[in-house]
Amino acid sequence: MVEFSQRSQRFQASAIRELFKLMADPEIIPLSGGSPADESFPLAEIRTIIDDLLATQGSALLQYGITTGWQPLREAYIQHLLQPKGISAAAENVIITTGSTQGIHLVCDAFLNEGDVVLVESATFLNTLNVLRKFGAQIVAVDMDDQGMCIDDLAAKVQQYHPKLLYTIPTFQNPTGRTIPLERRQAIAQLAAEYDFIVIEDDPYGDVRLEGEALPPIKYFDASGRVIMMNSFSKIIAPGLRVGAAVGTAEIISTLEVFKQGMDTHTDNLAQAVCAEFLNRGLLPAHLQRISAMYKERRDVMLSCLDTYFPASCRYTIPQGGLFLWVELPPGSDTTALLNKAVQAKVAFVPGAPFCLDAESGKRYMRLNYSFSAPEQIREALRRLGALLHDELQA
Amino acid sequence: MVEFSQRSQRFQASAIRELFKLMADPEIIPLSGGSPADESFPLAEIRTIIDDLLATQGSALLQYGITTGWQPLREAYIQHLLQPKGISAAAENVIITTGSTQGIHLVCDAFLNEGDVVLVESATFLNTLNVLRKFGAQIVAVDMDDQGMCIDDLAAKVQQYHPKLLYTIPTFQNPTGRTIPLERRQAIAQLAAEYDFIVIEDDPYGDVRLEGEALPPIKYFDASGRVIMMNSFSKIIAPGLRVGAAVGTAEIISTLEVFKQGMDTHTDNLAQAVCAEFLNRGLLPAHLQRISAMYKERRDVMLSCLDTYFPASCRYTIPQGGLFLWVELPPGSDTTALLNKAVQAKVAFVPGAPFCLDAESGKRYMRLNYSFSAPEQIREALRRLGALLHDELQA
Repeated sequence: MVEFSQRSQRFQASAIRELFKLMADPEIIPLSGGSPADESFPLAEIRTIIDDLLATQGSALLQYGITTGWQPLREAYIQHLLQPKGISAAAENVIITTGSTQGIHLVCDAFLNEGDVVLVESATFLNTLNVLRKFGAQIVAVDMDDQGMCIDDLAAKVQQYHPKLLYTIPTFQNPTGRTIPLERRQAIAQLAAEYDFIVIEDDPYGDVRLEGEALPPIKYFDASGRVIMMNSFSKIIAPGLRVGAAVGTAEIISTLEVFKQGMDTHTDNLAQAVCAEFLNRGLLPAHLQRISAMYKERRDVMLSCLDTYFPASCRYTIPQGGLFLWVELPPGSDTTALLNKAVQAKVAFVPGAPFCLDAESGKRYMRLNYSFSAPEQIREALRRLGALLHDELQA
Repeated sequence: MVEFSQRSQRFQASAIRELFKLMADPEIIPLSGGSPADESFPLAEIRTIIDDLLATQGSALLQYGITTGWQPLREAYIQHLLQPKGISAAAENVIITTGSTQGIHLVCDAFLNEGDVVLVESATFLNTLNVLRKFGAQIVAVDMDDQGMCIDDLAAKVQQYHPKLLYTIPTFQNPTGRTIPLERRQAIAQLAAEYDFIVIEDDPYGDVRLEGEALPPIKYFDASGRVIMMNSFSKIIAPGLRVGAAVGTAEIISTLEVFKQGMDTHTDNLAQAVCAEFLNRGLLPAHLQRISAMYKERRDVMLSCLDTYFPASCRYTIPQGGLFLWVELPPGSDTTALLNKAVQAKVAFVPGAPFCLDAESGKRYMRLNYSFSAPEQIREALRRLGALLHDELQA
């Protein structure tokens, strides 16, 4: 039988994939996903917007569109999501993507040759690791502390490995919830300019801030044109729409355009137009306030339950936004094994190992999501997990 | 500055790309595109469907979906588009794609190693050629006659090149409008089984039949599981939705799923649900009748104008469906050069060269689209093109 490509062997056999199928059990409390709350979606606004759009520009929306994106969305993205962060861009600097997953894939396609070095945070987004593996990248982890990526280690690895690309989630990082402070952001942009590598600044969570002051993106410090910032409407409007955006130099964007042409021609017009109208009608600020209040309550319940139910030897991050926190268990813990027991107890989380290049070092960690489940579910889930952990420690 | 990947050099510098930008001039009559008519879209039905869907399952549609597709669409695709063609499939045999462009990309990702041989029709879909080039395929053209791909030449090239993949558009082919007859379809499936290669049967146009009897797809004859059929909702509902589907063995589909996960996670749920409802409400047959009647009128106008306005030395195909016909000009003609003059005369078509691996042999051809423009525009465009061609022949 015809053999699959070599690159199809590069995806890691996912130990947790089968477990994820078990998680479809509706009785399980899922702290495992990365989904916004169902009740967070601005459904009434979207219904009105779609009805208006189809009444006034239905044919244009149903017809083929332009690969770089629905023009009103490119403009609205610049005006409402870039300019307020101090980033000036023209339409030629922007491409709309089918989620920021596609944006990451496009940048890999445009820049990576087999064997190129890509630096990532020592625990990072699973899907990016898989895409980098597919492209045959040599992936190198950069150490993190409580403030995210360590610049000393980054500088050392840049000099040692001459990377082509750095992938970072600087704000409310997945999986750790950590945020890189201002000076480090500036340093990352400077290192990229000095040592000539591309930075993918993946920022799907930055606008979901529960408290504290917003920081300028790395892109803000990008005098050399080497930073490509990715944004997503998944966490701020709705993931089902599959709309993201990337901003970079005109040369980079037009290269991404050629690759996108071969991937899906363009992103669904109606979904793009919904995002544009949502921004242009000024609905985003109130919506972000509403979901931030919702997620802050959930995060606070989770933090208080971690104190109440988890063994005192556990440590955890206190994210100022986003969807996740990261729990560190005592040495010798194995969260992949623990997940089996948790699923029996009808609770799901994601064990640390798959986020880490060095799976062994990830075994002490678990990622908990606080955006999807209601506060009382979070409380019950943490109670059950806490009981399991106390049993483990006594065993 | 950071260099782009080697694969980004593989896209052919598109000579017609700049011309396509000129074609944005609204005064130009576009016989160049591959778009359905704006007035063909079932806009009222789609408005009603979306309103119903958002009223009843809004949260599920706005939430993250499953990589293989919105379950009701997988089922509706099987029931309404596969079973009537004699193809039996279960959900595990189906993946919903972001247009069939994505389906083609996924199969390349799953099967092609650098240097693998891929057979294509001697004139074929531009975008597929670009994707194959990106993957570093060695592309080999198979001769065509009036009945599409020649089986003798296919058999000879299969034995000579040991291809990994054959890409074919058997029904109302792009760009020629030709349809492969039944015995050849059977022969293709048999050759794939005997010589162990994968067939991509790209079928976006098959349901847009203007006259004549439908033929079974190559997939119908696929006893060995080597045929992957791609369908699209772009031509039968609306391209702006970006929804397609692929059917193959469970093993192949689950491999495509892993690649799709890294490309866009899943296809827009609402767009998928619109397609599912359109099928399940039984709206497709009447809609296909309506657009077929519309396109038949336009095709007939084009055929009659070819007789009236074009030099008698021109030959052309008479497609029984789809969106395109293919005109052969006398030896020595150069349609790429002609396009410059046509654009001056405010008419656009696609010259033959970019569809052909051997660009030189494509210079005599042009592809004309009859689906997008109204009959009176088609008449005027053919009158202008005919005048240009008479001038050329007298020069």
